Amino acid sequence: MSRKASRASLIALSLERGPNAVPLHLQIYAQLRQAVLEGRLAADTRLPSSRLLAEESGCSRNTVLNAYEQLAAEGYIVGRVGAGSYISRVLPEDLQPQDSKQEQDSRQAGAASSQQEGLEPEGPFLARRARRILEGSRQQRPTGLPAFAPFSVGAPDGRHFPFDVWGRLAGRFWRAPDPLLLKQGDPAGLPELRQAITDYLGGVRSLKVDPEQIFITSGSQQALTWACRLLLDPGDRVWVEDPGYSGFRAPLLAAGAETTPVSVDGEGVCVDEALAGPQARLAVVAPARQFPTGATLSLARRLELLRWARATDGWVIEDDYDSEYRYAGRPLAPLQSLGEGAGRVLYIGSFSKVLFSGIRLGYLVVPPELAEPLRRLRRAIEDHPPLAMQPVLAAFMREGHFAAHVRRMRLIYARRQDCLRQLCADHLPGDSRLEGLEAGLHLVARLPENRALRDQAVAARARAQGLMVQALSSYCLTSERQAGQQGLLLGFAATARSEMPWAVRALASALRETNSGNGGQAIHQSG
Amino acid sequence: MSRKASRASLIALSLERGPNAVPLHLQIYAQLRQAVLEGRLAADTRLPSSRLLAEESGCSRNTVLNAYEQLAAEGYIVGRVGAGSYISRVLPEDLQPQDSKQEQDSRQAGAASSQQEGLEPEGPFLARRARRILEGSRQQRPTGLPAFAPFSVGAPDGRHFPFDVWGRLAGRFWRAPDPLLLKQGDPAGLPELRQAITDYLGGVRSLKVDPEQIFITSGSQQALTWACRLLLDPGDRVWVEDPGYSGFRAPLLAAGAETTPVSVDGEGVCVDEALAGPQARLAVVAPARQFPTGATLSLARRLELLRWARATDGWVIEDDYDSEYRYAGRPLAPLQSLGEGAGRVLYIGSFSKVLFSGIRLGYLVVPPELAEPLRRLRRAIEDHPPLAMQPVLAAFMREGHFAAHVRRMRLIYARRQDCLRQLCADHLPGDSRLEGLEAGLHLVARLPENRALRDQAVAARARAQGLMVQALSSYCLTSERQAGQQGLLLGFAATARSEMPWAVRALASALRETNSGNGGQAIHQSG
Repeated sequence: MSRKASRASLIALSLERGPNAVPLHLQIYAQLRQAVLEGRLAADTRLPSSRLLAEESGCSRNTVLNAYEQLAAEGYIVGRVGAGSYISRVLPEDLQPQDSKQEQDSRQAGAASSQQEGLEPEGPFLARRARRILEGSRQQRPTGLPAFAPFSVGAPDGRHFPFDVWGRLAGRFWRAPDPLLLKQGDPAGLPELRQAITDYLGGVRSLKVDPEQIFITSGSQQALTWACRLLLDPGDRVWVEDPGYSGFRAPLLAAGAETTPVSVDGEGVCVDEALAGPQARLAVVAPARQFPTGATLSLARRLELLRWARATDGWVIEDDYDSEYRYAGRPLAPLQSLGEGAGRVLYIGSFSKVLFSGIRLGYLVVPPELAEPLRRLRRAIEDHPPLAMQPVLAAFMREGHFAAHVRRMRLIYARRQDCLRQLCADHLPGDSRLEGLEAGLHLVARLPENRALRDQAVAARARAQGLMVQALSSYCLTSERQAGQQGLLLGFAATARSEMPWAVRALASALRETNSGNGGQAIHQSG
Repeated sequence: MSRKASRASLIALSLERGPNAVPLHLQIYAQLRQAVLEGRLAADTRLPSSRLLAEESGCSRNTVLNAYEQLAAEGYIVGRVGAGSYISRVLPEDLQPQDSKQEQDSRQAGAASSQQEGLEPEGPFLARRARRILEGSRQQRPTGLPAFAPFSVGAPDGRHFPFDVWGRLAGRFWRAPDPLLLKQGDPAGLPELRQAITDYLGGVRSLKVDPEQIFITSGSQQALTWACRLLLDPGDRVWVEDPGYSGFRAPLLAAGAETTPVSVDGEGVCVDEALAGPQARLAVVAPARQFPTGATLSLARRLELLRWARATDGWVIEDDYDSEYRYAGRPLAPLQSLGEGAGRVLYIGSFSKVLFSGIRLGYLVVPPELAEPLRRLRRAIEDHPPLAMQPVLAAFMREGHFAAHVRRMRLIYARRQDCLRQLCADHLPGDSRLEGLEAGLHLVARLPENRALRDQAVAARARAQGLMVQALSSYCLTSERQAGQQGLLLGFAATARSEMPWAVRALASALRETNSGNGGQAIHQSG
């Protein structure tokens, strides 16, 4: 392995200090990352030792180590004890140098684009359907910020997960693994886990279901995929929320669905508007807490949606992605539990947001009459889901660890949300207001209507400062709706309270600078 | 919980004894199971204690316990220490009472049926595509025999798997789980595991690939699903082997493919015949060891297939499902490694047959130009595969346990195959000949051409005696080909040598009785 000898000479850090400055380790992280992405630090380049860089830049060695650790965790650098750190040969996915529009939010590009006609960029060898999916997800992941950069949306704080307990339960399973692993598994998933989920849904979500109605999946996207396989033919129309969860776009397209975006307002998705448009076979909604706006679907609209489903033999997918975490008020009963439409609603839940992202376990609850067909469909298409984590999760739930974890995290998240609200009230300009506070893992700082898409400009500026801020309008599927959906998504679940003061101040400054049209960067770029 | 008091009165066992008889525990198992399936033993009925039943039936208590354990493992009975055993309330899936044709092999019904026009049996609420899949997989699983009934096909003997080692590696992972689990995973799967598979394929299969070309899936069906998502549009034509692996039917239909069955002979799939028929976009073949015939695709046909793919921009799926276990001769190089078509071949491998069924881990190797599109497609549709078992398998491979396990099992399987061959030579009639002996987990006892589908009659009779025998012709997709594909699939991997003498004798007697038109049952049904 030939290692280039080039070292510190290439790194000129320009660090900003002071009470309002971004923490030094984040500045170092950001500047080194930028240098890698721009090619100024080539693969295999050896980095200076943390001690040396600390001396040169006048900060503590711990600060430099902090930055190096983050770079290593993200895959920018690799190193071995005693051999120093080197720039990685393989850049992390999605962090490859891109064009200068990299800062534009991916989801917007993914969704709002109306270029779905020019289907050739992948070359002629892919299927049209695949190309259509890829066209829209070109920049699915934005920015190269750390996984736990402040305000990240949609991730729980897995650092609090009791991996020791989990490991003990896993160990117990493997010590006496036999009959399950040696036989063909249940196509719906492990019965014990389905029972545990049944109990949980009955207790927490007032959802009375039978374990036979539950299908274990690897997350909510796969739950939607199974629903589509059962219910949709190519060309069938599906109503989707606009703005909405972009992760459902590709599974729907893969199933051959045609989507009709439906507006969202303070009462959730506008069912009237949907009913007035082209008829659909399926509606995909998040009634408990609309993503990303945080709106709750009003009871009147719930009933209207269910009436539609019953009258037209339509289906409703109820995505209940994070209602485990509720801080105020009482939740409305799930659509699935309302008499009129119980037979027409498929309910999706996920553990990725409650436990940890890597678990990739979710579930689909189907009406009783769909249970047997789905069992057989799944048996035919993929036999049965991977067993490995199911018995562990079943034990984790049955023995009370799950409930305890949710209780503990709810307290932590509530404190974080409180802290964030207070700081926003103190620092953000008066034209923003906070929404979506009753539940969930993020809130929305709503901004006034703006045709220039100010929220995207602010988000880009904030990300340049190390904040994982998403623009609300970037979740819009149709560009006309962007001006009316102006806001910033601020995830608080994975952001420690100690990080919040500087983060909110940095956000406030990004808001002010965008208002004043000041194009300056808060972080000096190294030369 | 009201438990019925009805007990031994309902159970009248009729056991056959003697040197050629089926082992007593299997007779007890089979008769009790039959009584449950026929409703003679109702749910919640309490079974007599093993001691009592042993006394009544004049066999050892261990024999009864053996039978009870099997029934419990299969879900027919439930029990608690000290509280006795009861007939289960929920019968195991696929074991629900069916019509009297239950003995007919499912796969045949699944594949050969030409009833795909009458699409209404599921009611009008399912998608047409789903109904078409379900129509063909009505009886996907045959018989209610124990998982390890002699001659089971396609399952490894997981009882020899080193679960202690596996558990230790899993424990090690969970003790220091962090960064992977808290971040978004790699859409292709864990890089370490892809590296381990790369090394393995390079060493064992002479397949030179880059880890970037490998995608971790939950088994070979899902690998095919991803290939289809990338390459197929609804209506695209796919060549499939006939007879062939029925598990690929549903994933292809789910992708909207139209399939053209192509004959198989001693040199594997008849490429000429395929080329003369309707043009396809994709060919799904098992060149190393055709399933179920065990034929190896000749080099001439391999090259012909690759020329076709290159000339027409077609794609080839190479299913290499069990070539880990080779007992004689040298394997031909995989299609994927032949120069002419390397860019047109997608290679599918699976761990379910090498390690244990429940692991549900497999992989898809794509040509380099497809790697990046597939990464992005997978990210869009399901983000990333479940992480949990990947690091454990990676360590298992990296640290040599995988290679050691395959070596150990190859010896065990070779001895079992030897034993089975010898017994077949001694006991089976002279008109049968053994094929597919070079590799794999099953062999084929080929029978003379027969329009009455004698093999299916023999298989039904053998299954009634507790043998999990499959008829070769039941894997045919087109009924005209069944007469020419007469044979019995005899799995030996999960059948202990001690079981083989009575099993082969029972099979021989099923063959003789079918020849002589004797319709008698070898096992007396209890009255």
